[in-house]
Amino acid sequence: MAPAEETSKFCEAYPMKGGDGPNSYANNSTYQRGVVDAAKELLSKAIAEKLDIDILLSSNSFQIADLGCSVGPNTFFAVENIVEAAKFKFQSQGQDSQVPEFQVFFNDHTPNDFNMLFKSLPQNRRYYAVGVPGSFYGRIFPNASIHFVHSSYAIQWLSSVPKVVVDKTSPAWNKGRIHYLNSPEEVARAYEAQYTEDMECFLHARAQEIVYGGLMVLTVPGRPNGSSHSHSSINMSFQLLGSALMDLARKGGVSEEKVDSFNIPIYCMSPQELEAAVERNGSFSIESMENLPHVSVDDTVSKSQLLAAHMRAGMEGLVKQKFGEEILDELFDLFRKKLEEAPFFIETGKTISFLCVLRRKGNGLEHAV
Amino acid sequence: MAPAEETSKFCEAYPMKGGDGPNSYANNSTYQRGVVDAAKELLSKAIAEKLDIDILLSSNSFQIADLGCSVGPNTFFAVENIVEAAKFKFQSQGQDSQVPEFQVFFNDHTPNDFNMLFKSLPQNRRYYAVGVPGSFYGRIFPNASIHFVHSSYAIQWLSSVPKVVVDKTSPAWNKGRIHYLNSPEEVARAYEAQYTEDMECFLHARAQEIVYGGLMVLTVPGRPNGSSHSHSSINMSFQLLGSALMDLARKGGVSEEKVDSFNIPIYCMSPQELEAAVERNGSFSIESMENLPHVSVDDTVSKSQLLAAHMRAGMEGLVKQKFGEEILDELFDLFRKKLEEAPFFIETGKTISFLCVLRRKGNGLEHAV
Repeated sequence: MAPAEETSKFCEAYPMKGGDGPNSYANNSTYQRGVVDAAKELLSKAIAEKLDIDILLSSNSFQIADLGCSVGPNTFFAVENIVEAAKFKFQSQGQDSQVPEFQVFFNDHTPNDFNMLFKSLPQNRRYYAVGVPGSFYGRIFPNASIHFVHSSYAIQWLSSVPKVVVDKTSPAWNKGRIHYLNSPEEVARAYEAQYTEDMECFLHARAQEIVYGGLMVLTVPGRPNGSSHSHSSINMSFQLLGSALMDLARKGGVSEEKVDSFNIPIYCMSPQELEAAVERNGSFSIESMENLPHVSVDDTVSKSQLLAAHMRAGMEGLVKQKFGEEILDELFDLFRKKLEEAPFFIETGKTISFLCVLRRKGNGLEHAV
Repeated sequence: MAPAEETSKFCEAYPMKGGDGPNSYANNSTYQRGVVDAAKELLSKAIAEKLDIDILLSSNSFQIADLGCSVGPNTFFAVENIVEAAKFKFQSQGQDSQVPEFQVFFNDHTPNDFNMLFKSLPQNRRYYAVGVPGSFYGRIFPNASIHFVHSSYAIQWLSSVPKVVVDKTSPAWNKGRIHYLNSPEEVARAYEAQYTEDMECFLHARAQEIVYGGLMVLTVPGRPNGSSHSHSSINMSFQLLGSALMDLARKGGVSEEKVDSFNIPIYCMSPQELEAAVERNGSFSIESMENLPHVSVDDTVSKSQLLAAHMRAGMEGLVKQKFGEEILDELFDLFRKKLEEAPFFIETGKTISFLCVLRRKGNGLEHAV
């Protein structure tokens, strides 16, 4: 076994902006917080109805992993919800005295700001906290060592940009754009293929790490079943950001060649696509798949301002890595203006967040030793 | 259970200097590296002779913790030695096919530079790596979740400076000094009392976290049995550093009152003192207690230069926190000069590194479920 080698092929990492400054992820992830809140009820229901308490009783402690945790505080809210629901499940079954200790594995890419994550761990937490650096597209835990996996707004990130979209000789070369909307058909196909490959790696790794009977809850931003890529407002936003970058290129602020070789490794999946991946993998049963209610956000600032701030918090690291820090203010300001000029562009777009509950197939007792 | 509360009373943290600059711990811990190398043989022997392979076979994976790991690379060498010895033990018993997966928990105080630690994890490591922030004087792991604890050059750090030595009204007030050498008798007594209390917390926490039959290997810088505090060269070094600080105070570079309230929370224990603590605790058997051979260090630079560099790497964080960054160069330069002026001071001092192998008492099978 060589865990490091297994994961080292997944070398690209796109950390959220660390620290706690005005443009930090920590201060610009209220939308993601809204998603965590909206997911709370479904998460609690999943634990109440689907968690097999015998799995827990066979172990000294209950291991939870949050994959793609970023720097908090959203991950702490999510984890708190899980711990609370699991404790409630024990208590409601009269197992008060058997409530296990909880250990939470906070995972994200190695460049993630774990120092900040650790410093902001809640003082009154009811679990042992641990940080796990590494890509969740590879193995990050020993066999059968995790009881519950949670991941919110993370698996839309691909392991890397599909190679062909930056290959000038390929029909999938994505010149002048940074995502697959309004691109040659081959570009979207390349993203789809990368998604399929990545999701198989993801599910294969988790199938080994999660105990039989263990649960995995994924919250995913995506597009509704049956809708095309071109109607996804996430994709539309990236198209606008790409157009802002091309404007900068035309003004000489960035090199056009750099824009040609820059692509955002995010795939906007539908629930059906995720279902298909789970079925191909074969190790998990789909216990539920539900859309989350729409998240209402702070309306004291304009929607375009908020969207621009969220876009910056999520994409700044990626943009900076390629184009340098100096273009950030101008780029995201231009992006905001473009949003304001074309509000219908976003309004007519479709986006959903959905929550998927998976259960590791197999007999819980097989792992109980 | 409230792990965070349990540990939050241990709030003082003295991280080694992070990053990889010229004064960083990573680049100035060759002595500590020498200790790791010297300990290798004893560590391998302990694993070959004392590790109960049945403990491992009853678990899916083998959990190792390195307490006070700092930022590497020494922790990686130590962990590699442990993994290698454990694998060899399996293979030598014809259990090749049963070699478990390894998971390593790298622990240090929350302000430790975990980002750097994670970035420098060996590419070809044969274990899953995890970071654990928090004081090892409190609980940091669930019950019975660790098979092997390692800690090198860490438990000499007390959880905090004894309160009475900074209390002006106490006979133990340590005015004009930063450690207990040449201080009123009460100061050394206060340090001893703090050591006793801390070591009981340390052993109590580990007794809960380590599986029955699990091993704990501690490498400790200390003084020989039967020698007094005043002959310890570690203590002598701190006395020189304190004297350098007082020189700065007299020149007006730092406030004398600050020096009065500054003390180094390190206790230089003897093997007998550690034995006594283990016996008081009662949960561990002492499997071996041996002095390490003396470490020879790079002799292309002068000994005083090397000692000053090591002192700075270890103490810079603590000094900076109290006196600010601006005094660092002058202080450690003055310290080096003092070493050069009084080489006999250090040469006549006594210091040892010893390695202690403890085994969690109890029947391994009780934790095997």
